[in-house]
Amino acid sequence: MHGSEPLKGYKDFMEQRRLTLSARGGEVPLSPIRKLTPLADDAKTRGTEIYHLNIGQPDIRTPKPVIDAYRSFNAEVLAYSPSLGIPQLRESIAGYYQRYGHDVSPREVAVTVGGSEAIFFALSAVCDPGDEILVREPFYANYIAFAAMISAKVVPIPSSIGNGFALPSHDEIARYITPRTKAILYISPENPTGIVYDRAEMETLRELCERFGLYLIADEVYREFIYDDHVQFTSILSLPGFEQHAILIDSVSKRFSSCGARIGCIVSFNRGVMELVDKFAQARLCPPTVGQLAADAAYRMDPSYFTPIRDEYKRRRDVLVEGLRKIPGVTLNVPEGAFYLMARLPVADAEDFCRFLLADFEEGGKTVMLTPGAGFYSTPDKGRDEVRIAYVLETEKIRSATSLLEQALPLYRKQSR
Amino acid sequence: MHGSEPLKGYKDFMEQRRLTLSARGGEVPLSPIRKLTPLADDAKTRGTEIYHLNIGQPDIRTPKPVIDAYRSFNAEVLAYSPSLGIPQLRESIAGYYQRYGHDVSPREVAVTVGGSEAIFFALSAVCDPGDEILVREPFYANYIAFAAMISAKVVPIPSSIGNGFALPSHDEIARYITPRTKAILYISPENPTGIVYDRAEMETLRELCERFGLYLIADEVYREFIYDDHVQFTSILSLPGFEQHAILIDSVSKRFSSCGARIGCIVSFNRGVMELVDKFAQARLCPPTVGQLAADAAYRMDPSYFTPIRDEYKRRRDVLVEGLRKIPGVTLNVPEGAFYLMARLPVADAEDFCRFLLADFEEGGKTVMLTPGAGFYSTPDKGRDEVRIAYVLETEKIRSATSLLEQALPLYRKQSR
Repeated sequence: MHGSEPLKGYKDFMEQRRLTLSARGGEVPLSPIRKLTPLADDAKTRGTEIYHLNIGQPDIRTPKPVIDAYRSFNAEVLAYSPSLGIPQLRESIAGYYQRYGHDVSPREVAVTVGGSEAIFFALSAVCDPGDEILVREPFYANYIAFAAMISAKVVPIPSSIGNGFALPSHDEIARYITPRTKAILYISPENPTGIVYDRAEMETLRELCERFGLYLIADEVYREFIYDDHVQFTSILSLPGFEQHAILIDSVSKRFSSCGARIGCIVSFNRGVMELVDKFAQARLCPPTVGQLAADAAYRMDPSYFTPIRDEYKRRRDVLVEGLRKIPGVTLNVPEGAFYLMARLPVADAEDFCRFLLADFEEGGKTVMLTPGAGFYSTPDKGRDEVRIAYVLETEKIRSATSLLEQALPLYRKQSR
Repeated sequence: MHGSEPLKGYKDFMEQRRLTLSARGGEVPLSPIRKLTPLADDAKTRGTEIYHLNIGQPDIRTPKPVIDAYRSFNAEVLAYSPSLGIPQLRESIAGYYQRYGHDVSPREVAVTVGGSEAIFFALSAVCDPGDEILVREPFYANYIAFAAMISAKVVPIPSSIGNGFALPSHDEIARYITPRTKAILYISPENPTGIVYDRAEMETLRELCERFGLYLIADEVYREFIYDDHVQFTSILSLPGFEQHAILIDSVSKRFSSCGARIGCIVSFNRGVMELVDKFAQARLCPPTVGQLAADAAYRMDPSYFTPIRDEYKRRRDVLVEGLRKIPGVTLNVPEGAFYLMARLPVADAEDFCRFLLADFEEGGKTVMLTPGAGFYSTPDKGRDEVRIAYVLETEKIRSATSLLEQALPLYRKQSR
């Protein structure tokens, strides 16, 4: 052996390195509708009208005070805001929770760039690489993306449409908890199932978090969208003695039909968490300044704003459920809240059926776009015969859409036989 | 040994776990001016006027087309935009680079939430936990924050005010490259030094990246702010044959005095990089919608917009340099671009002097706020006698500010003797 060989080997190794991409990037999933988008574009080019029941973009008119906040913006300099948000917005957000009886002060509110950044900050505050977050499956696909971006991992707690996506028992969930588990993340009302966690389920989550020293991260962005009097919403902020564990994610996007404002927030009574959120927030400087003024205007509206909107979504849900129930072979879980529904279709591959709808079907110049269910499961092969349907269009369109599905399914099954 | 003991030990361990915060959060630095902010607030409460030369928030009037874009917003629904940005904005950004002779197409442009998100996406696309990014020191403190958030690490390439912050030689920089190094990140014109990388320095960086298989990430947000005819700006986009290595970070914040819009972009000809950026972008849904319309209006302005602004910054720089040169014991590096200057003061602890300025000094009801230089160094004890001065105020205020510094320094030295 020559004494210089190891060094030479190192030098060769170093100089033969090639550009590589991060492994984390590979772990971030593509959007479940990604592959369908070109087909939808082609259909539109052919002149086909598409009912978009595939995305959570409501057609509800954005409230006038929000639009007016943009239209009346008149500063000489469009300056940075404070990193944690404009003080008056932090106050109005705290006031919103206070109206629901939660004792939140403005310093426990950090304004974020949408609910997305709030989720990202929450995960970043509690996870290091290799750490695990439990989420009941099916779940919002982007939770995986945010975890992957920080080299953490979403571990699914399985549930299925067959038993109404019931949350497994304490002991069943405990089996998924490892030394790397740092938090349980849930969303109520839930995207994609429309489930609202009841008090007993909330207690199960709380007991698990207390027993194993876990954070509970609650995504409550659909809080106002609950359609039945017997369904009781329990906020994470209403669990006494649980303050150190609780991290709340929120957003104006759906609440005020202001998705494009990109304003959300993170709320926690845990000072350590909020100190880290503060540091993360400082690094990215601030949320959009005018969007914060618009969000402030939204939060200052009278809560009666929600009544007609809730009524409208309830009508939409009812029309959708009624329409789907008429279709032979469709299993569905009646959503209690949010504006999504998971349905099992009488097909082996729902993604292929979604493609069929866009590429090979139309009736009266119209078709429907749905989201394949598999994208909401990380367990392989789960949800392959399911779709998520977002009831974000007016009732007449939903009625037409379910009728189109009713016509399309037998045609698809005939051609795929 | 009892057979059940290991399991019992595991059970006890699991149930005795406490809530912990992420280590990544601990690695994110606090802002260099963080500790000074309460002192500034106190001074204001006492009625003292503060010249804020501590932050890069220009007082330049935001162009009318930008403000008008907010004021004329009038959609029924404030909806999500496409994740990579509104097509017309991607086109106008590509057009901006084309005017500089760079062959950029809209699909090579991803719109981001400010330059901050662009940096974050660039690092996320190329780094995994433990990976290293080289940055010439002193540098923008938030680079450390973004790296820490993804468990990567900024490795400083030292330079010092004594030799004009000259970039070390190829061989000197090569010593800092390890198997974990994934990229070199630089900014030109530079925050905090005002340095503009010349062609020879750009070639040094390019050769290193080609030799060792590294990405070169260029932050060009201050591109228009160059004050001397003899200083030639070389964009990363103008290095032929280097396309696969090059990742450009950009923003409207300083360029169009639109910091609060939170619109930036990432530009790369490397398809793999852009595919990951696309996935990251989809996870966070979209940049602010109306801000994108405002940015589009900005990019469509006639480039003559920059002439008076550049002239104004040049005057400010000249007044600042002239004022500082009159102060005994001050060493400074004349900035070629951007709107920052690093100066060495005749004090042992510049942070303590910054505190003195806010807490114990005023003249005619006025004082100055500066940023302690140490915050721009990650090497311990470096930059302790330096400050960063942002020349973001009009010339009369800068003249007053340097005069205040001239008066404050002897007083401080007397009291701290």
